[in-house]
Amino acid sequence: MGSTEDLEYPQVILQYSSGFLVSKVMFTACELGVFDLLLESGKPLSSDAIAARLGTSTTGMERLLDACVGLKLLEVELTREGAFYRNTEISNIYLTKSSPKSQYHIMMYYSNTVYLCWHYLADAVREGRNQYDRAFGISSADPFGAMYRSEEEMLKFMAGQNSVWSICGRDVLSAFDLSPFKQIYDLGGGGGALARECVSLYPDSKVTIYDLPQVVQVAKEQFVPPEECRIAFHEGDFFNDLIPEAELYILSKILHDWDDDKCKQLLTKVYKACKPGGGVLLVESLLNEDRSGPLETQLYSMNMLVQTEGKERTAAEYSKLLEAAGFGGVQVKRTGKLYDAVLGRK
Amino acid sequence: MGSTEDLEYPQVILQYSSGFLVSKVMFTACELGVFDLLLESGKPLSSDAIAARLGTSTTGMERLLDACVGLKLLEVELTREGAFYRNTEISNIYLTKSSPKSQYHIMMYYSNTVYLCWHYLADAVREGRNQYDRAFGISSADPFGAMYRSEEEMLKFMAGQNSVWSICGRDVLSAFDLSPFKQIYDLGGGGGALARECVSLYPDSKVTIYDLPQVVQVAKEQFVPPEECRIAFHEGDFFNDLIPEAELYILSKILHDWDDDKCKQLLTKVYKACKPGGGVLLVESLLNEDRSGPLETQLYSMNMLVQTEGKERTAAEYSKLLEAAGFGGVQVKRTGKLYDAVLGRK
Repeated sequence: MGSTEDLEYPQVILQYSSGFLVSKVMFTACELGVFDLLLESGKPLSSDAIAARLGTSTTGMERLLDACVGLKLLEVELTREGAFYRNTEISNIYLTKSSPKSQYHIMMYYSNTVYLCWHYLADAVREGRNQYDRAFGISSADPFGAMYRSEEEMLKFMAGQNSVWSICGRDVLSAFDLSPFKQIYDLGGGGGALARECVSLYPDSKVTIYDLPQVVQVAKEQFVPPEECRIAFHEGDFFNDLIPEAELYILSKILHDWDDDKCKQLLTKVYKACKPGGGVLLVESLLNEDRSGPLETQLYSMNMLVQTEGKERTAAEYSKLLEAAGFGGVQVKRTGKLYDAVLGRK
Repeated sequence: MGSTEDLEYPQVILQYSSGFLVSKVMFTACELGVFDLLLESGKPLSSDAIAARLGTSTTGMERLLDACVGLKLLEVELTREGAFYRNTEISNIYLTKSSPKSQYHIMMYYSNTVYLCWHYLADAVREGRNQYDRAFGISSADPFGAMYRSEEEMLKFMAGQNSVWSICGRDVLSAFDLSPFKQIYDLGGGGGALARECVSLYPDSKVTIYDLPQVVQVAKEQFVPPEECRIAFHEGDFFNDLIPEAELYILSKILHDWDDDKCKQLLTKVYKACKPGGGVLLVESLLNEDRSGPLETQLYSMNMLVQTEGKERTAAEYSKLLEAAGFGGVQVKRTGKLYDAVLGRK
């Protein structure tokens, strides 16, 4: 940036301008099932064949496929019979619905919900609050009321969070040796992907997913297999209901939804419930102390503005919140991926 | 792509997912006037001062500024008195309203109009047509009727196109030596930035901007200074009204709005009007013949799906259209920037 080249022709500005086009091309190819079809088919397909199988226009599909080639999400082979498309390896792993590391669900949440909230980013900055009102015509007084405004929306959100843990869960749970903690509560554990990662990584642990009744219901029915006896459930609202005693509490992407006062209130409650010698594991995306980045986290902090009452924070800010609630011996571990880990002890 | 690194952790997929966040952060900082204020102020300002001057929330503004630091659109200095922000050079040149190379207007068009049309990209691909209906509740039968649905929208579009020519105009007009052509018609010349670039580069030329009456009106009143006597105007609809005789016709970003039949119809009309020895200059973003890119052009071709009846084309496709209308001696010049040039002769 600021290179002579960029000053004469603003390549980087043009790239930022096209960012939303890039996102929507990938999201749309996922939504229409392009990557799933090409995985199933097991051989390259023509644009016309793909359009026919997916019930889309040929003129739209051809361009979508070519844009995916430009993004290196597809490869194209030109033959005498025409152009034939196939998945790249990265698309097979991350963009097909059936892959264990599929990011399909988080993309659908981004594409259909977050994208529209962000249309009102200027209003969010002016007003300092989330934009469910403008984007969806629903009250924004209770962000989770808005996010879970229908079972469909709640499902999309839960499945989306599970996609995140399929690529980041192992790193945040192995950032510290959690094997001394046998009784674990995952507060706001949602669809349970992190809990499942936890019992897989620490086979002696028992994890209880604590979440709102409607969330627990769906987690039981759709996400956590009933034969997984190391995972239990507890229905409740952790701000208003009892938090049972345990050795470790995981708060994964919880504090970033709330302002400092609510964070302190929740952490104080957790501290009181916690067994002496126990702890709390915060899983969050950490901002650098000097405000320089990481860019993804800065962008997510804007998303917290647009969708919640919270923000992303620095390690020092989380440490301060933990200490204000009574926790000590705070340790911070950056994973180099999207989410980091902070451990506090009682 | 497909590197071992990406297969273990999909950095590139996460970057594509965040594309729309990046776009909206830059667009919003432009819209709220952050770069203009920092240029005017002549000294670094705190987040609180910027929020106060621009009438926004402090919590929203601080995050917006930090995200701009992450994007290298701003620099931050941490002092004992707090954090102070200033523009980078690239922001001064391209993101302030007053700069001659300002991209402000095209960004406002992207942010407020194109972004919302693209929310319906999946529908556009399914149906193979533009999405004014879903995005704005207006009929999509006539794309320019939809694009010019209000004087405000028309102004935004015209100002936006002018921004494009402020960075790309000189290259497309100097791709060929146009000095032999004195009488030039710029068909659909809109806000006139390309015409102004043309008379500046070829001082002996006279350029007539041919556009719809309401467009010509606004171009005269708001964009082209009345003392510029080398630029004239002609009100008309080039599909339905007479095209006067001239030595050169410029069709800049016109053919990409229309399907092959309409392109042939227009080019045939232009060929008939053209003086023998004259020519036609197409200014378009050219796709590679092997469908591999450029990515920007592939994305723009999707935008043509979402907003118009056209598409982006390869040089061979434009040559074929020109030849079908009677033009010969077709020459193609790629500029290495967004827009390229194709010259046909009568």
